[in-house]
Amino acid sequence: MKRDLPKSNEAIIRALMDEWTEAVRARDLDKLMAHYAPDVMVFDLTQALSYVGAARYRQNIAGWFSAWQGPIHCERRDLSITAGDDVAFSSSLTHNSGIGPGGERIDFWVRVTVGFRKIDSQWKVAHEHVSMPFDMETGKASINLQP
Amino acid sequence: MKRDLPKSNEAIIRALMDEWTEAVRARDLDKLMAHYAPDVMVFDLTQALSYVGAARYRQNIAGWFSAWQGPIHCERRDLSITAGDDVAFSSSLTHNSGIGPGGERIDFWVRVTVGFRKIDSQWKVAHEHVSMPFDMETGKASINLQP
Repeated sequence: MKRDLPKSNEAIIRALMDEWTEAVRARDLDKLMAHYAPDVMVFDLTQALSYVGAARYRQNIAGWFSAWQGPIHCERRDLSITAGDDVAFSSSLTHNSGIGPGGERIDFWVRVTVGFRKIDSQWKVAHEHVSMPFDMETGKASINLQP
Repeated sequence: MKRDLPKSNEAIIRALMDEWTEAVRARDLDKLMAHYAPDVMVFDLTQALSYVGAARYRQNIAGWFSAWQGPIHCERRDLSITAGDDVAFSSSLTHNSGIGPGGERIDFWVRVTVGFRKIDSQWKVAHEHVSMPFDMETGKASINLQP
């Protein structure tokens, strides 16, 4: 009988991050939310400074999905994962592009940091921080930056 | 002979975070940089999407310090620390206020996520992500949000 070697913590987390981008492309909310802790602390791209809870995050993502006309392009790069036995974090850049609510072309990069905790032997997202830097002169989000 | 109990990983990291806010108030660059890994990955509040290195971070902070007239108020709240044996992360909100370069009153909150790695038995900042959310309607950073 052939057995697969157990995956490293880093490999498991890398797979979760890949699932996330696939779920955005497929607009699959259940797949996207599968790995969030119920009490995840979110520092989101827009609106509030912070909020708590997978339920609210799901609602925001649902709204975000519906704002795009046609396919959502979603690609991650520069993914760095630092994993211990029970605690891990990752940093990466995510590229989204497509057609926005008014028919306009949208194309931007965001920074994504994720904090993971192993809960009942499963890696869960306990913290997520998504942002763009802003321009001190204009006060505007730097939506045109590219890595 | 009286012996202190060894500090928990969480307590050590909490102390590092306290030192950070004290160092900002004192404009003490050496104290502020003491706990950064040389190859720290930074997602900063302004300018670039990302950059690598404690040397560049130090330069940015030095510029930031010199932009304030008089004292820098710096206070942290809602600090949450998730610490394993060798990897940890924290999330918190930081309040800065004081008098800006043009004599204007500045007062804002930022979200701060820090990723820590234990290197040679010492906790070091391997990743830092500082940001404000922005307003989708105006495209501007939401500088007036309060927790």
